[in-house]
Amino acid sequence: MAALTPHAGSAHVIGITGSPGVGKSTSTNALVVGLRARGKRVGVLAIDPSSPFSGGALLGDRIRMSEHALDPEVYIRSMASRGHLGGVSWATPQAIRILDAAGCDIIIVETVGVGQSEVEVAGLADTSIVLLAPGMGDGIQAAKAGILEIGDIFVVNKADREGADATVRDLRHMISLGDRTEPGLWRPPVLKTVAATGDGVEDVLEAIGKHYAWMAEKGVLEERRVRRAADEIEAIAVQALRARMGDLREGSDLEGLAHDVVAGRLDPYAAADRVVGSLTA
Amino acid sequence: MAALTPHAGSAHVIGITGSPGVGKSTSTNALVVGLRARGKRVGVLAIDPSSPFSGGALLGDRIRMSEHALDPEVYIRSMASRGHLGGVSWATPQAIRILDAAGCDIIIVETVGVGQSEVEVAGLADTSIVLLAPGMGDGIQAAKAGILEIGDIFVVNKADREGADATVRDLRHMISLGDRTEPGLWRPPVLKTVAATGDGVEDVLEAIGKHYAWMAEKGVLEERRVRRAADEIEAIAVQALRARMGDLREGSDLEGLAHDVVAGRLDPYAAADRVVGSLTA
Repeated sequence: MAALTPHAGSAHVIGITGSPGVGKSTSTNALVVGLRARGKRVGVLAIDPSSPFSGGALLGDRIRMSEHALDPEVYIRSMASRGHLGGVSWATPQAIRILDAAGCDIIIVETVGVGQSEVEVAGLADTSIVLLAPGMGDGIQAAKAGILEIGDIFVVNKADREGADATVRDLRHMISLGDRTEPGLWRPPVLKTVAATGDGVEDVLEAIGKHYAWMAEKGVLEERRVRRAADEIEAIAVQALRARMGDLREGSDLEGLAHDVVAGRLDPYAAADRVVGSLTA
Repeated sequence: MAALTPHAGSAHVIGITGSPGVGKSTSTNALVVGLRARGKRVGVLAIDPSSPFSGGALLGDRIRMSEHALDPEVYIRSMASRGHLGGVSWATPQAIRILDAAGCDIIIVETVGVGQSEVEVAGLADTSIVLLAPGMGDGIQAAKAGILEIGDIFVVNKADREGADATVRDLRHMISLGDRTEPGLWRPPVLKTVAATGDGVEDVLEAIGKHYAWMAEKGVLEERRVRRAADEIEAIAVQALRARMGDLREGSDLEGLAHDVVAGRLDPYAAADRVVGSLTA
């Protein structure tokens, strides 16, 4: 990381999130096609929060690979987040930095919208795209899931299906109710695509470019990246402190305190104070 | 916690986990009825890993309350785990200790089997019950989910449905393939219930009693509780260290380091070392 860091910082990191079935892989693929047509070097990280045993990541890799397998300017990698200490927030920034230093112009981080991982990924990206499909994500669902706040660009995919216009209208309405319509703020566009045919993908690429330009102009890009770096430093520091606690456990200091708690001689907060004390002594 | 700890340590903590639809609430309810018939004071903690916005916890509470609402010897509480820093592992041990110190003989911790929370809950319980339903949980699914390792008692609920015997047979077979059949080890029984009618619930209560006696005899009870206390102390210590890092962030130490990382002057590991250094100085 020390060797890579000076070479990183020029890639535009794009997060794509959405529920299963909205067409994330197809959309990512369509964006890669469009970016390659513009001569961009592209990295794709697909974060798979499901079990490492499911084989989903591997299968996903193989399907994705087929179209871009022979293109040396496209790197695609699935990462399982489950079971890793720290999950998405710990491993992904490092993978992003490697692709960045390797000269990717655009890095797409794709994740299934399950629970909090999409919010985590939004924290990692310069530009967050929230993908929905007609009938699946009405505005209220989106508001509940907290995605109205994290999306920089909303895309209603499978827009040839019934209900697409209603979903777009719902989303625009919900966004207009928020506080993101003030002058100078980025107002997230709501776009329609049919990723399978490529329809509307150019509009998304254009919105991505506009969002980047807006961020650069307003100083938001720097701000987001500093916040991202701070999150990453904190995650690494927590890992390091946890490792030290593991050493304590090995050394049976923690074991002894745990015995005292079970015996009722010490409460867990007092015990934790001693652990913190011995770590910071 | 300091005031409570000396009074805690006598309750038998039972974890109940299973996928949605296997009948966890009904089973918990049936166990409470059986335990009350034996004169036990019972506490129930239902961990709800879903969104705090869903209202599921509130509704669940109300449904559960109806039968035991007037019984002063039964305490029932739903807890949302999502969105809380540290989740199940941080808040639940404290809730358990309060119920324990308040004189509950048995504390049932019920959780939906989603992702890792069931494994976390297994770490909190003296006795872990894994609930399955016919056709839902064949042995291979159970093995994949890692529940074969965590269950002390397996219960196939809705045993009046087709396929119950096959599920029982599958489970017994999978367990027989594991390393839990050695002499002296606890061999998890696989029982059948129809919780809605109470059929088989006495067998489960008997197995719970036997498991407790086995743990007490073999020293496993003490061992599990020490491990649990160690986990709890560690979780509290991590919280405390995170809070200190938050202070650092406020004081803009972390901010400055993050700027250096974004500018490529410092890699995140070196930055994290400095954070750890300043915390432990």
